[in-house]
Amino acid sequence: MKRNVYLKKTDWKVALQMLHDEFSSIFPLNAEKIAVEDSLHRITTAEVTALLSSPNFNAAAMDGIAVKAESTFGASSSQVKKFSIGKEVELIDTGDPIKNGFDAVIKIEDIVIIDEGIVEVRRSVPPGKDIRYKGEDFKSGDCIIPKNHCIRPVDIGAMLSCGVLDVEVRRKPRVSIIPTGSEIVKPKEKPELGEIIDCNSYISECLVKEWGGIPERCPIVRNDKKVIKQAIEKVISRNNIIIVIAGSSAGEEDYTVSVVKEMGTVIVHGVDLMPGKPVILAKIGDKPVIGLPGYPVSAYIILDIYLRNLMAMALGTPPHKRMKIKVVLNEDINSRLGMDEIVRMKLTRRNGRVYALPLKRGAGILSSLVRADGLLHIPKDEEGVNAGGEVEVELIKEFRS
Amino acid sequence: MKRNVYLKKTDWKVALQMLHDEFSSIFPLNAEKIAVEDSLHRITTAEVTALLSSPNFNAAAMDGIAVKAESTFGASSSQVKKFSIGKEVELIDTGDPIKNGFDAVIKIEDIVIIDEGIVEVRRSVPPGKDIRYKGEDFKSGDCIIPKNHCIRPVDIGAMLSCGVLDVEVRRKPRVSIIPTGSEIVKPKEKPELGEIIDCNSYISECLVKEWGGIPERCPIVRNDKKVIKQAIEKVISRNNIIIVIAGSSAGEEDYTVSVVKEMGTVIVHGVDLMPGKPVILAKIGDKPVIGLPGYPVSAYIILDIYLRNLMAMALGTPPHKRMKIKVVLNEDINSRLGMDEIVRMKLTRRNGRVYALPLKRGAGILSSLVRADGLLHIPKDEEGVNAGGEVEVELIKEFRS
Repeated sequence: MKRNVYLKKTDWKVALQMLHDEFSSIFPLNAEKIAVEDSLHRITTAEVTALLSSPNFNAAAMDGIAVKAESTFGASSSQVKKFSIGKEVELIDTGDPIKNGFDAVIKIEDIVIIDEGIVEVRRSVPPGKDIRYKGEDFKSGDCIIPKNHCIRPVDIGAMLSCGVLDVEVRRKPRVSIIPTGSEIVKPKEKPELGEIIDCNSYISECLVKEWGGIPERCPIVRNDKKVIKQAIEKVISRNNIIIVIAGSSAGEEDYTVSVVKEMGTVIVHGVDLMPGKPVILAKIGDKPVIGLPGYPVSAYIILDIYLRNLMAMALGTPPHKRMKIKVVLNEDINSRLGMDEIVRMKLTRRNGRVYALPLKRGAGILSSLVRADGLLHIPKDEEGVNAGGEVEVELIKEFRS
Repeated sequence: MKRNVYLKKTDWKVALQMLHDEFSSIFPLNAEKIAVEDSLHRITTAEVTALLSSPNFNAAAMDGIAVKAESTFGASSSQVKKFSIGKEVELIDTGDPIKNGFDAVIKIEDIVIIDEGIVEVRRSVPPGKDIRYKGEDFKSGDCIIPKNHCIRPVDIGAMLSCGVLDVEVRRKPRVSIIPTGSEIVKPKEKPELGEIIDCNSYISECLVKEWGGIPERCPIVRNDKKVIKQAIEKVISRNNIIIVIAGSSAGEEDYTVSVVKEMGTVIVHGVDLMPGKPVILAKIGDKPVIGLPGYPVSAYIILDIYLRNLMAMALGTPPHKRMKIKVVLNEDINSRLGMDEIVRMKLTRRNGRVYALPLKRGAGILSSLVRADGLLHIPKDEEGVNAGGEVEVELIKEFRS
């Protein structure tokens, strides 16, 4: 039986560094100019500065009358001053411009309108009282948001208020996802014996969306070197990152590595991480290619590490960090020396502490990932962790109770 | 000068409870059935159970040969057993079905294929070895994900693997956003004196998207009772929640409250919260209506409290919680007794502690919200907090350094 040379296990963090080194010259992607109103969650490629001041004129901050502050000096409840409306003072609503000559607002509660033309004032106000000055919020030229910033709803509001209608943002990374395998079929209700429903391409597609990219989920291709090669050739020029699902190991019918070798360079084949070991990290032309293991938990872990980082590089941002919490282990967990392991954990809160139970550890047990609240990382130089010990778990689900 | 009776300040938490009580009979919204592949981030309305087992047949977990475990008993490196391929054992790849009669797999590394027909085995295996049993991941009928669960990428993978192609999810709340005000104009580069650029309707639109709804941003309507009324009438039947921006206070030209009174019931007008005080919470027909203050920080705070909660009610989920961190105040903050106040805070990390500085506090200072890392809530029974004191801040930005 022909076999490829079995994959050499690279330290998974070194593999990540190799990926960084290899693609730091082509990422981040270029900028594109889009309408600010469409820019939610996009990443800025340059500082955005105000084109207008906001507010753009001195404005009343209250409903009331605009006055010359000086003219009110000395007014009090025992010494009422009267002003002629439209001449000495002017009725004004919140947001109205303050006309030349006026420099303060007296709010409606502090005046009495005697008749159509006369207002009584019973207090004095200092210059500037209840005026929103031009540029009080943003001055023309001010930085609104910095470079490499993920645009939020309030940022959009601030840009529009400052007359900024277009913004330069990072192009979204386009990721092609190529599921392979003669036994793999599209999701269906009644698969035949031996057929395996493709779930990895859908999980990949959703993760690409969550991480700010545009996925292209390609049709399933059968396990045939020529066909896999054609599938990659078809999409490589229009996408920034290529994912080939399955066939990444070293079995007789695992063609991905040989296809990738023919088309480009294999950077890493195999890492010291479980699940996730039989991964391929490669380069075809100047595009990164990830050969994903077929077991869904392995696939997920690999995407979560390598694709997430590649996409962050493409977007010019640090990869999103998950929250970590300290938990107490409910039972012993043994782990293989020489392999980092990621264990899916179910958490429960009891008497103010959080307890963690490991779920099934097979790379094919997607339910462990669905049911887990968090991930426990056991380093390769540890044989495991003991019940009662405190460890840190990365949350993958909102953990409430 | 005519004035509406000034708004009465309801406790803002009581106001939230009143909103809950008023709309708990119409929310959550109904379910709709959609394709699982389109269900990312939607909320389940019922437990989703597996229609198929996953895997759906007993399968090889390794490349190798399928054997009757019993037939290997006694085999060792000193006592090699030979089997006829295709008769006594069968070549098998990972994922292939285990045929009747076989009950274990010996992996490729542990066998030697002598010639086309014969394989040498040098170890014995127990029944079940390297077989992924039918239903090992999910059994038909198992719960995949619970009710009221926000669907993640792995959940989509799990549902598809279990033959589930459609899923019942909560309809997305549809929110109409009606900006009002004769001085309000669409975003432009060169507004005239007195024109104020609409930013609130864009901020509202983006927040509705983030919170899982479908916004309908309506054209700006001028400050005219009849026109505002028509604008509400036009959209109320096709949307679940109505937001009317500005005119929510009690000034002469603040028409929102009188329009809403004509069309329905005012539940609350004014809360003891700064910024955000002049809010209207109302009901027209069976639809909730929020009359939003015009100052953008007030508008944001009100949306963040009342709209976020209404949308969570509509979706049948708890509102998303933000992370809180403990910080040390860099300077004294005074606050008005009798009013809860939300102060925007800039954070810095120094020697392992996080220090917080209050930003400008005006309701019109959107830049304070853009630049803030978090929000500090000062309760109404406190006159402020002193420099050096430790307080909890809710993060509104990813806080890294």
